[in-house]
Amino acid sequence: MNGNEHFSAAVQGITEKFELGDFELQQGATLRGAWISYRTHGKLNAAKDNAILFPHMYSGSHKDMELYVGPGRACDPDKYFIILPGQFGNGVSSSPSNTAAPYNQGAFPKVQIEDDVIAQHRLVTEQFGISELQLVTGWSMGAQQTYEWAIRFPNMVKRAAPIAGTAQCTPHDQLFIECHMSQLRSDPNFDDGFYTAPHACHIGLRRHAQVWGVMGCCTEFYKKEAWRDGGFSSMNDFVQGYYENWFLPMDPNNLLTMAWKWQHGDSSRNTGGDLAAALGRIRAKTFVIPFADDMFFPVSDIEAEQKMIPNSELRVIESLWGHFTMISMDPADHQKIDDQLSELLAIDV
Amino acid sequence: MNGNEHFSAAVQGITEKFELGDFELQQGATLRGAWISYRTHGKLNAAKDNAILFPHMYSGSHKDMELYVGPGRACDPDKYFIILPGQFGNGVSSSPSNTAAPYNQGAFPKVQIEDDVIAQHRLVTEQFGISELQLVTGWSMGAQQTYEWAIRFPNMVKRAAPIAGTAQCTPHDQLFIECHMSQLRSDPNFDDGFYTAPHACHIGLRRHAQVWGVMGCCTEFYKKEAWRDGGFSSMNDFVQGYYENWFLPMDPNNLLTMAWKWQHGDSSRNTGGDLAAALGRIRAKTFVIPFADDMFFPVSDIEAEQKMIPNSELRVIESLWGHFTMISMDPADHQKIDDQLSELLAIDV
Repeated sequence: MNGNEHFSAAVQGITEKFELGDFELQQGATLRGAWISYRTHGKLNAAKDNAILFPHMYSGSHKDMELYVGPGRACDPDKYFIILPGQFGNGVSSSPSNTAAPYNQGAFPKVQIEDDVIAQHRLVTEQFGISELQLVTGWSMGAQQTYEWAIRFPNMVKRAAPIAGTAQCTPHDQLFIECHMSQLRSDPNFDDGFYTAPHACHIGLRRHAQVWGVMGCCTEFYKKEAWRDGGFSSMNDFVQGYYENWFLPMDPNNLLTMAWKWQHGDSSRNTGGDLAAALGRIRAKTFVIPFADDMFFPVSDIEAEQKMIPNSELRVIESLWGHFTMISMDPADHQKIDDQLSELLAIDV
Repeated sequence: MNGNEHFSAAVQGITEKFELGDFELQQGATLRGAWISYRTHGKLNAAKDNAILFPHMYSGSHKDMELYVGPGRACDPDKYFIILPGQFGNGVSSSPSNTAAPYNQGAFPKVQIEDDVIAQHRLVTEQFGISELQLVTGWSMGAQQTYEWAIRFPNMVKRAAPIAGTAQCTPHDQLFIECHMSQLRSDPNFDDGFYTAPHACHIGLRRHAQVWGVMGCCTEFYKKEAWRDGGFSSMNDFVQGYYENWFLPMDPNNLLTMAWKWQHGDSSRNTGGDLAAALGRIRAKTFVIPFADDMFFPVSDIEAEQKMIPNSELRVIESLWGHFTMISMDPADHQKIDDQLSELLAIDV
């Protein structure tokens, strides 16, 4: 065991690998023998026009979004070909934890959202020959990728549903991300990212989880003890059993790669820094979906971007779970999100 | 220099010392030779009925609230006798940084808001012979002390103005405080609080400041670059020049003493855990003053308590500065707060 059993097939399930060869990143480095992982559900039809792309969030992998895939759901594999693509740094695509020197561990190059989307675009076009996606949707960093898709490839994306995320990382989120990155690096065993085993950095991972606990759920959530919905016995039991338990199996360098990418997410790079021009490019019918009490992505931040998207609607989802509404510890949240996606898919575009 | 020059007269100005003798704390320890510091402005009249008490916030001292004292202000020393009392742990009252073994440094006992208020009550009654206060007001931890005063000594407090604080620490604030306490303790030189010099723990102090940066000001504040009002040149310049600069001269154990006190603040201990009963005891005419975008103390949390106070009004102050509206980097904020206090003082009670 190298301490990265979290990224094994036993934990992640069977994963397809899309080889990218020598992949040049936006920041200049070339990842040799790069790949992104993915998984699919359903069948691509003969016309190749029934595909949905559903990228995933920070600290996750394709398996986490399978919650939203199933018969009778919006992402119904009996009807759609659903591609759950990975992102660089997730531990099952090219990542600090699985890359050889000189780009190993703490020396892994900086990756941007554009790199993920370019890699995913190659997967979609080269591997599957798809030229049109019925829907691109994703949560949090998945929303960043959704925006980048809809802006970079406007003619390919018929519908878009960015959920609880922004096209351009806000200054406040930049600070928040810097703060939780600092926690990872604060571990006494971190050694500039050249630790001997990721679990040796559990103190940094726990501190990182603690910052997530502060920002992840709102004051009403804790006051009403909504964590009881998740089967937790106290607030501390929730912070440990939910946040620490989630992050502890992970690799700090992988998290730092994704966090930096999130922090530097900015789709206005497509248009020389003009965010309105970037969002104005979107041709997809778009449901912009914030969560009412999200402290990472307040409705006001999301709405400011939504107003710049031509054919868009703001669809706020109420839940005490804040940013983590997507995890659907409350089954009603699951249904609300699914209903939005179903409604969007039913619109003729 | 022992590294505690921040608490010297050169920095803090001349401070009066009120000796408490052997002072038994709520948690059981006895602080021998305990004292709280204070400063006064104006003159106590012959009837001894023109006094205002203005306790201070976390990480501050009496001198920080002098911003609100001056001719023409609500707290006008030509009219009122204004007492700015200290609190335990502030570095100029009994604190980890100035107490001898066995209660020195990391072994300083736990202190509660009640201890501060009992000590302040002795100052007010024994030192000055005052039996009635025209106003008790304070910001943040000063608001906690204001609530405790109005609940514990309802017949002494004619008017109360708790600003951006709560009578009972919310669960979410408990988490936030735990998180920033962890930052102080994370310093590689912390040594269970027995560091050789407080400045040796600057890494922990900086991490603590970073968490404050995330929660201290709202997303709109950073988006609109309101830090420019304070003369800062970038967001990072603000975080370093404002938050780090503020906390770096301080003593981590002192901060931990105040933080624990804040975290465990609960005026419902006066009434066996019944918060409504505690707040129902207040006889003062009360203006409850939250700041609109305060992430520590959202208006909803403050309003929930205000509704339980018989003769009270909610007076929300709009500012992008969030919890730090009180520091009044924007002079308009200063005036808005002062106006509320003036209006309250003008009410005949």
